[in-house]
Amino acid sequence: MHFSSRLLEQAVDEFGRLPGIGKKTALRLVLHLLKQSNSDVSRFTHSLDQLKEQIRYCKTCFNISDHEICEICTSVKRDHATICVVEDTRDVMAIENTNQYQGVYHVLGGLISPMDGVGPSDLKIEALMDRLKNGEVREIILALSATMEGDTTIFYLYRKLKGFEVQISTIARGIAFGGELEYVDEITLGRSIATRVPYERNIG
Amino acid sequence: MHFSSRLLEQAVDEFGRLPGIGKKTALRLVLHLLKQSNSDVSRFTHSLDQLKEQIRYCKTCFNISDHEICEICTSVKRDHATICVVEDTRDVMAIENTNQYQGVYHVLGGLISPMDGVGPSDLKIEALMDRLKNGEVREIILALSATMEGDTTIFYLYRKLKGFEVQISTIARGIAFGGELEYVDEITLGRSIATRVPYERNIG
Repeated sequence: MHFSSRLLEQAVDEFGRLPGIGKKTALRLVLHLLKQSNSDVSRFTHSLDQLKEQIRYCKTCFNISDHEICEICTSVKRDHATICVVEDTRDVMAIENTNQYQGVYHVLGGLISPMDGVGPSDLKIEALMDRLKNGEVREIILALSATMEGDTTIFYLYRKLKGFEVQISTIARGIAFGGELEYVDEITLGRSIATRVPYERNIG
Repeated sequence: MHFSSRLLEQAVDEFGRLPGIGKKTALRLVLHLLKQSNSDVSRFTHSLDQLKEQIRYCKTCFNISDHEICEICTSVKRDHATICVVEDTRDVMAIENTNQYQGVYHVLGGLISPMDGVGPSDLKIEALMDRLKNGEVREIILALSATMEGDTTIFYLYRKLKGFEVQISTIARGIAFGGELEYVDEITLGRSIATRVPYERNIG
């Protein structure tokens, strides 16, 4: 691309570094911002600077929080004997949106991925062990992605957690609600047959 | 969406205001920035703040520029008797990328659009007239989008420019190179038949 301004080129380069934003989209976004008022643009950049400077992570569950301990971890309405282990804050948001879960969380901050150089020590696994030491936790739900990295992390956590007096479960995998059999991929379909569930449990 | 942090929510809201960026994409981008170093994030926000504060528009052609007069308008290699009128800086970039045009530009800053409340006085049309007054310009090429707004603007400019001793042309419209007839929309196909060109001109 041939830029008429170095400042414009720099801003487009910076936007283009974001995942999924190509050069053309970056240019479109920057030109959009140029048309906004000064106060709109500075509110945009200030919100990012402020987030980056002031961001905190809950000292218990490591979810993003404005306080030292997050609202879920301080809530007396939640079941603190059940911990749902997730990869990042988006998973907490997704599970909270279901309104089906009343326990607390533990955010690992990633998944074990040798390809990306992420090992167990890069994740909040030791902190999870510490939470189990007082013996008050009865169940750990491993709600991790159904990917190679998710499976590797589940396997690692299972071996670490097995020494504790705690029920370890993973979220159910299978065919999504509304999914038509003929469009389901073979691995999911094969596994969902292998891990079939007695009908009484499904209607229970 | 249920946010665990007000700062996070604000940043996602700001990102989500950008055109074509939904809430989920905004969250993904903000979480990506959170994983970057402080210096990476401040370089990103600084580049936008700097662009917005220091942006200048060429006093001759109104293209985005780092200088009072842009590089194209100051270049002695360009043909200053031919002005290509475009909507915005992206069009200048697109035409420059073709390496087919040696003239100069005039950036209107938009198109006439009563629906969006954009009238002729919101565009750099008077400034275009001023450029014609010294009598040195011989041709005006109207390179505007083939839309209702583009056609309206072309019609308006044509009436304003008719009084000057200047050749007015529009860029050719028709079937794109590589375009297969059966997939061309009816309006384009109909017009390209009505405005057919003698074969000798195409090979010339």
